[in-house]
Amino acid sequence: MRAAIFRDGDLVVDTMPEPKPAEGQVVVKTLACGICGSDLHAFHHAPKMVDAAKRSGSSFVMDLKRDIVFGHEFCAEIVDHGPGTQKTLKVGTRVCSVPMTVTVAGEKGNVHPLGYSNELPGGFAEQMVLNEMLLLEVPNGLSAEHAALTEPMAVGWHAVQKARLTREDVPLVIGCGPVGLAVIAALKIAGVGPIIAADFSPARRKLAETMGADIVVDPAEHSPYKTWTEQATPEGYDPTSLLSILGMGPKMRPAVVFECVGVPGIIQQMLEGAPRDTRIVVVGVCMEQDRFEPFFAITKELNLQFVFGYTPEEYALTLHHIADGQIEVSSLVTGKVGVEGVKQAFTDLANPEAHAKILVEPWR
Amino acid sequence: MRAAIFRDGDLVVDTMPEPKPAEGQVVVKTLACGICGSDLHAFHHAPKMVDAAKRSGSSFVMDLKRDIVFGHEFCAEIVDHGPGTQKTLKVGTRVCSVPMTVTVAGEKGNVHPLGYSNELPGGFAEQMVLNEMLLLEVPNGLSAEHAALTEPMAVGWHAVQKARLTREDVPLVIGCGPVGLAVIAALKIAGVGPIIAADFSPARRKLAETMGADIVVDPAEHSPYKTWTEQATPEGYDPTSLLSILGMGPKMRPAVVFECVGVPGIIQQMLEGAPRDTRIVVVGVCMEQDRFEPFFAITKELNLQFVFGYTPEEYALTLHHIADGQIEVSSLVTGKVGVEGVKQAFTDLANPEAHAKILVEPWR
Repeated sequence: MRAAIFRDGDLVVDTMPEPKPAEGQVVVKTLACGICGSDLHAFHHAPKMVDAAKRSGSSFVMDLKRDIVFGHEFCAEIVDHGPGTQKTLKVGTRVCSVPMTVTVAGEKGNVHPLGYSNELPGGFAEQMVLNEMLLLEVPNGLSAEHAALTEPMAVGWHAVQKARLTREDVPLVIGCGPVGLAVIAALKIAGVGPIIAADFSPARRKLAETMGADIVVDPAEHSPYKTWTEQATPEGYDPTSLLSILGMGPKMRPAVVFECVGVPGIIQQMLEGAPRDTRIVVVGVCMEQDRFEPFFAITKELNLQFVFGYTPEEYALTLHHIADGQIEVSSLVTGKVGVEGVKQAFTDLANPEAHAKILVEPWR
Repeated sequence: MRAAIFRDGDLVVDTMPEPKPAEGQVVVKTLACGICGSDLHAFHHAPKMVDAAKRSGSSFVMDLKRDIVFGHEFCAEIVDHGPGTQKTLKVGTRVCSVPMTVTVAGEKGNVHPLGYSNELPGGFAEQMVLNEMLLLEVPNGLSAEHAALTEPMAVGWHAVQKARLTREDVPLVIGCGPVGLAVIAALKIAGVGPIIAADFSPARRKLAETMGADIVVDPAEHSPYKTWTEQATPEGYDPTSLLSILGMGPKMRPAVVFECVGVPGIIQQMLEGAPRDTRIVVVGVCMEQDRFEPFFAITKELNLQFVFGYTPEEYALTLHHIADGQIEVSSLVTGKVGVEGVKQAFTDLANPEAHAKILVEPWR
């Protein structure tokens, strides 16, 4: 089969053997698979990523001397059932799955993170193997390209679940790439607001509005934290009044801020800009060393919740949110390529005015 | 009156005018006042502290060209009642108060942080002015020197309140200076355990046991995180078993780790050492720029709760915990000095084998 393969630090198109299903697994044809920011990071900084994974004790460490097929945001179609399967879903059924395939030997298991595995190909290949027990049938005749958005949208849903939201919160989303947009969509479903979103890119701010942001801010023009303060300040609030000093006056609404940028320096900017008692949810994945001044976080008693991934339940719920039209994903898809187009797409995604999500369709 | 005064970057003994009570205030004689790590920091790094306070938007910014009398961990005795007071507590009554004095002009108020104010003296002076409405009578004939421990012990109580403790938690305290010891005392009252505490100093580890630590660790000999893992792992736990991979096996008990050191590098050590889903409560006050690698926090979904100070209610409750014998503070007091001894005490406190808390008795 054909695949876009990460080999010797480059992305090349080549053929490779079709994966064989083990006990309880099915073979699927990849219908659509999104390119994720983590894929771009792995492409540009693979050795750093491997080093960080090793030092953080992760059991998922890529061997860069061997081939890897990226792609973990996929929708696929069942092609064949392996040994010991139930066959509840027939050949031809359109399915999604969390991007991991479990293999079992005796009582022990092995988890292969699809898209970052040396053993099994990810979604930038024509075929993959998935666990039958992890398959979710795509409902409501939802298209493969929209179902493929389940994975990145689940990241936002999970982040919002970890935010310990209350009805009083005024949320602020910093960065409106796919991660920030997923957070906005989840906040909209959660029913909190006004949702304030900030991004330097006009195209991304427009997408933020499409996904449900109530107020968008260009940080080059206006501080997102000032906008937050305007929205969260109750009438008659005066921090210098005796009532406020005694804690008896009207109070600011609580702040929850989502970090969806993932570059060094952003967290310190938040520690400086965020109001007292803010919960900061770090969704952006910064793989570099970063600097910060704890003093800002201490005196304001800030909380930082770092988040990663999602649970299988959150993933399944997100697929239904998309199928039910609660998340309008169609405007996120800004391009489609075959395996030959993957490398160019990795470059094109650097321009936020032109692109949000590019899908790979390996069957093209 | 006599006081130890922070003047031109030095600590000098001099006389100064007795403070005058404004509306609603009382004059008190300082009976005992502890020296805090923050006092040491202010002494050695005052310009940095002022800079950080300014940049963090704090309304408490010291003017280093003018005199400051440190001291915010005090017990005192009422000497005189100012205008507009209720006089519910008589002259001679032993009292504590949160270390702030509020003055009112019209509907506006001003808060003076006692110990870091250019306007009002802290507890290293013979007299202070306090708000009558903030006074707490020292109960049960508790001695002034023990009552003076209310403030640092309240810091630990507050940190534990912010930790969102559950009965399942296994707490780990990194650093057994006064802050760490206060956290241990609060954890003991909260009834969670085993409480694991780590410090390089044998004397501090002994104090940790006195305050309620169940297991003490010398990090030079043994990783505190390994000790934690030994304590938190249920019987039959195997992370590589299929049951564990599917999230259906026995689970590790939840981790809550208290950072009570406050120097650069400690937070990154925790991000590396802490198990998945750990809540890290940052109680130590690091005033320097620090470095960290977000990736460690992200993949383990760590939570960092920065904490500072306490509420008036927490302060009041802590005074009662001490008076009721729930916190055994007597072993914490390792020295007492008059105002002439303050500067030497600031030096002596650098030795954790010799000292935990030195009290200043300005009446000596």
